[in-house]
Amino acid sequence: MGYERLGDDMKAAIASACGGRTAVAEEVRRQHGRGESYHADMPPDLVAFPRTTAEVSAIVRLCHGAGVPIIAFGAGTSLEGNVLALHGGVCIDLSEMNAVLRISAEDLDCTVEAGVTRLQLNRDLRDTGLFFPIDPGADATIGGMAATRASGTNAVRYGTMRDAVLSLTVVLADGAIVTTGGRARKSSAGYDMTRLFVGSEGTLGIITEVTLRLHGIPESTQVGRCTFTSLDDAVATVSQIVQMGIPIARVELADAAQMRAINLYSKTDYPEHDTLFFECHGAASAVPDQMALVQALALDNGGSDWATAQTAEDRNRLWQARHDALYATTAQRPGSKGFITDVCVPVSQLAQCVALARSLVDATSVPATIVGHVGDGNFHVICPIDPASATERGEMHELTGALSRLAISLGGTCTGEHGIGSGKLDYMALEHGDSGVAAMRLVKRALDPRGILNPGKVLPPLAQG
Amino acid sequence: MGYERLGDDMKAAIASACGGRTAVAEEVRRQHGRGESYHADMPPDLVAFPRTTAEVSAIVRLCHGAGVPIIAFGAGTSLEGNVLALHGGVCIDLSEMNAVLRISAEDLDCTVEAGVTRLQLNRDLRDTGLFFPIDPGADATIGGMAATRASGTNAVRYGTMRDAVLSLTVVLADGAIVTTGGRARKSSAGYDMTRLFVGSEGTLGIITEVTLRLHGIPESTQVGRCTFTSLDDAVATVSQIVQMGIPIARVELADAAQMRAINLYSKTDYPEHDTLFFECHGAASAVPDQMALVQALALDNGGSDWATAQTAEDRNRLWQARHDALYATTAQRPGSKGFITDVCVPVSQLAQCVALARSLVDATSVPATIVGHVGDGNFHVICPIDPASATERGEMHELTGALSRLAISLGGTCTGEHGIGSGKLDYMALEHGDSGVAAMRLVKRALDPRGILNPGKVLPPLAQG
Repeated sequence: MGYERLGDDMKAAIASACGGRTAVAEEVRRQHGRGESYHADMPPDLVAFPRTTAEVSAIVRLCHGAGVPIIAFGAGTSLEGNVLALHGGVCIDLSEMNAVLRISAEDLDCTVEAGVTRLQLNRDLRDTGLFFPIDPGADATIGGMAATRASGTNAVRYGTMRDAVLSLTVVLADGAIVTTGGRARKSSAGYDMTRLFVGSEGTLGIITEVTLRLHGIPESTQVGRCTFTSLDDAVATVSQIVQMGIPIARVELADAAQMRAINLYSKTDYPEHDTLFFECHGAASAVPDQMALVQALALDNGGSDWATAQTAEDRNRLWQARHDALYATTAQRPGSKGFITDVCVPVSQLAQCVALARSLVDATSVPATIVGHVGDGNFHVICPIDPASATERGEMHELTGALSRLAISLGGTCTGEHGIGSGKLDYMALEHGDSGVAAMRLVKRALDPRGILNPGKVLPPLAQG
Repeated sequence: MGYERLGDDMKAAIASACGGRTAVAEEVRRQHGRGESYHADMPPDLVAFPRTTAEVSAIVRLCHGAGVPIIAFGAGTSLEGNVLALHGGVCIDLSEMNAVLRISAEDLDCTVEAGVTRLQLNRDLRDTGLFFPIDPGADATIGGMAATRASGTNAVRYGTMRDAVLSLTVVLADGAIVTTGGRARKSSAGYDMTRLFVGSEGTLGIITEVTLRLHGIPESTQVGRCTFTSLDDAVATVSQIVQMGIPIARVELADAAQMRAINLYSKTDYPEHDTLFFECHGAASAVPDQMALVQALALDNGGSDWATAQTAEDRNRLWQARHDALYATTAQRPGSKGFITDVCVPVSQLAQCVALARSLVDATSVPATIVGHVGDGNFHVICPIDPASATERGEMHELTGALSRLAISLGGTCTGEHGIGSGKLDYMALEHGDSGVAAMRLVKRALDPRGILNPGKVLPPLAQG
């Protein structure tokens, strides 16, 4: 599909549609043409900073009329080239739509503008006794997290953005504004448009407001850590925890290489072996028993060096170290950029998949670490690569393919939480079949007939000829 | 849209496509032209009993070519006219596709054919230590439950079919076969087609296989019951339970009228006041503390007559009585059929909504009962009506409208778990807005351009120009 480049008339019209808040300076455009990954920058032609859904709608209408691509942009923390302006066009930066519109402590929900970040939301919630649990490492925006179907360390207990979003306000390709649901906890009234837009990466509509489920801050929290000599033992521990219905809140894997990187970066002195981090939280009367069960299972499965974080400060340092895994890995190699890829498999396949992933990365020239949300069967491979090295970029491309094929062959998915973006298009047909991709294409064409919404993402290009 | 009636050639072709397992006898057709509601029978022209996804695909391809409507049919327990053959056509009865294909105790999941019923599945799971928690009152099929986005008493803890379904095999309108996901617990690989088909009531595709999340049978279960003189007090109790993060498994409301009906039908002697039923389950070490907290909250909020079911038999009798609410209500009036409607609102609006619902039903000539999944803000009004009485049917139509408008005005939905079917088409635009319905219509047209899949359901007819 051919796209129009932005002429001066369109630039003026878009500026006029959003109160003059547009930018064409190269530095601003470059900032908006990249995520936190190794992909080369692909800047848009113009960046707009709307403050209302109506302004977003007006911009989209203009672009729809002119056949100009539109890329929605949150915090720029995506990892699969999700925001690259592959065909130029207009970047809609939603960071000025950053109001928390409504919080209901009684209903445990809130409505926020898309540009609110997860840390901002949790700061705003602090006095309500509630929190928002979804925590990808970066301080992403809620809109971006919804668009990517993001998750993080708490997903084993609280689910992903698929579960957290009650309703969305979305601007469609022609500028129409749709609200996809009410505030009821469940509904069987019509098609689940909420879930259709969650994870669509800006290719079906631009998310401008999000209504979220919240949760009560647990009365008590305990954190434990245990090392294992065999990945099978670590995964067996996790399987048993889940099967027994212990309401574990977090269970995270970091491999020996990741533990070394964390110690160097975070000035910690954790044992440098494959490690599981556990968090239990809930009623003060229940948590110690849960944690004792977790410990007993870990030790039964050959775990050692069991340790608990005793204070809130210790706990926070431990989880910050975990969240900084990407930065810790890239810090090992100055000047590197983190190549990071994620896959997700049934938990029964996880030990095998991680072991094979380790042998795949060991065959490259780049030192890699592995971390994972092991309760979900989801893990990340992090490689600090030299972005200027075509050899290393080629190795990472091969690695992504091999890992994706491996995960799919084990009944899993080529991405658990990073999305397809432009980085994983090659594996969509393998995962969903030609008929599955064809059905998605029908939906895309129905909602975006001119193909202006984040073109080149999620759906692989149609074969030529 | 005009539809073709079935000619003899088509009848023969369809019979040939599914091993001769078709029926045209009036009694069979009538059985397949109704649910468990008061709607008048609307029989299909032919009923087919396929045994494989390939047979379903072959039938659908024939109907697609000829422009003949197709209605998928499970156990016939739907409540909003969801399976009526409004335009004739072919009913695909999936009850012979009733194999449990795979159970993984390690991954807590299974794959079943669409015609497996929920009780059959739980019987098959008994030796695995696992169970499937979604429990609408009737013994519905898993395929039908997925198509209706069903839930039930456990949804406050385990979610609805939206959450329970990991993946579907679906036959599209042109006969193409799509599998919508793998077995990974989460994925961000492309559009969430699983959730698009869940709740689509057979209007976007025919579900033939379902992969489900399962859960470990809890080590310990306790059930309690408490009566309240004020609905506000009962709802306040529930709000506090949810806010405190007590992992309540079930919390059900039955109003005084429902309790009278239950006592008569189930030969019980419960106090005949507004009543909450509670279930806590989990580790044996945790459940007594949870139940003690629930009891304390209930009594703090003015509850009385606290009682617990001590044995498994008592517990089962109690939940059976609750599940028989519809039958208990219709038994009060011999010859009646249950008119049942459900709405769902934010929990903060529930007490007000139930009180207004009670005054709406009291203004009709029919004695009604109210039961609800109060932890979700979802409740049912059950009226035993004389199906031959146009007056009563008219009253129920008015009541449905008034309740739907009320729930939507309170931020809720016109149906929490029964679906739209043909019974609630009038409230789709009020709930979703014209732009929301228009977006659903785009999706429908993309996936079913000839409109042959369960025509006349979910989406209201386009206004005539």
